[in-house]
Amino acid sequence: MDINTNITKELKLVDNFIKKDLIKEKTISGLYKYIFKSGGKKIRARLNLISSSANKHKDRYKLASIIELLHTATLVHDDVVDNSPTRRGVKSVNNLWTNSHGVLIGDYIYSKAFILMVEMENMKILEELAAATNDISQGELIQLDAIKNLDISLNKLKKISYFKTGRLFEAAARTGAILAKSNNSYINNMSASAKNLGILFQIRDDLLDYSINLKTGKPSYQDLREGKVTYPFFFAYKNANKKEQKQLRNLLGNKKLNQINTSQLISRLDGINKTNELAKKYHQETIKYAKKINKLGIKQEMIELANIAINRDK
Amino acid sequence: MDINTNITKELKLVDNFIKKDLIKEKTISGLYKYIFKSGGKKIRARLNLISSSANKHKDRYKLASIIELLHTATLVHDDVVDNSPTRRGVKSVNNLWTNSHGVLIGDYIYSKAFILMVEMENMKILEELAAATNDISQGELIQLDAIKNLDISLNKLKKISYFKTGRLFEAAARTGAILAKSNNSYINNMSASAKNLGILFQIRDDLLDYSINLKTGKPSYQDLREGKVTYPFFFAYKNANKKEQKQLRNLLGNKKLNQINTSQLISRLDGINKTNELAKKYHQETIKYAKKINKLGIKQEMIELANIAINRDK
Repeated sequence: MDINTNITKELKLVDNFIKKDLIKEKTISGLYKYIFKSGGKKIRARLNLISSSANKHKDRYKLASIIELLHTATLVHDDVVDNSPTRRGVKSVNNLWTNSHGVLIGDYIYSKAFILMVEMENMKILEELAAATNDISQGELIQLDAIKNLDISLNKLKKISYFKTGRLFEAAARTGAILAKSNNSYINNMSASAKNLGILFQIRDDLLDYSINLKTGKPSYQDLREGKVTYPFFFAYKNANKKEQKQLRNLLGNKKLNQINTSQLISRLDGINKTNELAKKYHQETIKYAKKINKLGIKQEMIELANIAINRDK
Repeated sequence: MDINTNITKELKLVDNFIKKDLIKEKTISGLYKYIFKSGGKKIRARLNLISSSANKHKDRYKLASIIELLHTATLVHDDVVDNSPTRRGVKSVNNLWTNSHGVLIGDYIYSKAFILMVEMENMKILEELAAATNDISQGELIQLDAIKNLDISLNKLKKISYFKTGRLFEAAARTGAILAKSNNSYINNMSASAKNLGILFQIRDDLLDYSINLKTGKPSYQDLREGKVTYPFFFAYKNANKKEQKQLRNLLGNKKLNQINTSQLISRLDGINKTNELAKKYHQETIKYAKKINKLGIKQEMIELANIAINRDK
């Protein structure tokens, strides 16, 4: 059985571990079950399991569950922050219950993750996960600065992508490698490959918001409607003349933008091409570090994840 | 110099420690500084310093700062949950910025506290604080059930007071005692005294919402207007006949309630007296465990805190 099939099986064990929350309070268990019912792709937990597969420790599923809990807590809070009506195809907590429920069940899930990581009694893993959680909140806060901010720099956008998304990918890989008692070379190559993979994921996510949605046949432009400056808008704005800049400014935060005109404008100003180029750069970096990993199965898994990331259309 | 004067001095060091956050991102440092400018009473940090004064460890200020950071994170999230316009006499983060800023800077402060506690490398302290943080979020979530809920039990109200407030008082005392490498008897008596003190604080807080506000000359009834069932309402409703129950139901969640009529109704139905009786019970419990502490200065501090708590009018 190859490593990929194995890890898909192991992710089911992670899912069971997460769902085995013993809280008796009905409100809390109701919210908790609702949130974890839909599951999601668990890409971060998968990455963590790949990394820790180098030397299988009894706490592997627990660690992968912690990673998934931390990620889910950020999603629940993000939905409050973005006022999102849906998550993973179903109504978000803030929509089905209230913002208050979203804030508090997010805190519950965060602190549950901390309880589990303390149980692992591994100081290096604790350090990495506490730092990563703090960096994620920083990424989200800096992103609030990107709202209707035409002066934002490319470096700031990259920092947002790293902190918001790359950081937990990196921590998933690093803690998995630490748990597997690996050598520094493996820890560092896995971490660097995963960090770049995470940034690539975020760039593709930004691009998908500007791409034809398979259901509706039109781009959704959710980020643009919320006034968020992401890569496609950033590059287009840089290429725009005065008149086009004015057109672009009118789109930012515009809930009723014309999707066809927007699509033509952003494409013509190279917003999509330039973002694709940037994605390719992070894809190459992911592969570069993956190739330095001297465990064949794991190297192949990382390369496959990089290829999935750059080609994904949902 | 007595212990009280010393601890007031030490609280200034805690304040300095907290303010020494080195984040360079302007948005984040702006929010952070704003939140910690007003300071507050730092009753939980004080309790922690009292507890750890039994045997002074170099990390005492760090631990007290962690307790204060955890408490502040819950306040910032609470203000989002309750949609509060003010905190400690100034505009709340959610009011001056947005709910999104409140959610995310709360996460930042929580995770900063976790980074600091991991640095302390004390597993027992980590365990206690991770568990307490989770319990606090549970208390807040259970409290959402108390909104417009006339069937809530006295036990559920007590659980809310314990989880929401008593739990961090307890953790502050317990971790302080653990840091001071104290014996189990000291750890348990300090924790039990502090737990009851915290519940007493919450009961007094509920009562203050029903008491004459020194500025306006009228009770503010913030909890009642938000539809929260707290002790005074609970006891009044239990004593009410059908007609009075209907009157009380009309007050719950009523933003435009008549303060004079409300005050008369709640008092006549013994809502205030019964809540005062409950407060006295927790005051006695706080003192009972404080008297078992065999360090004279610390015992006296705990008794003084209990007396301040039951007499406080703001």
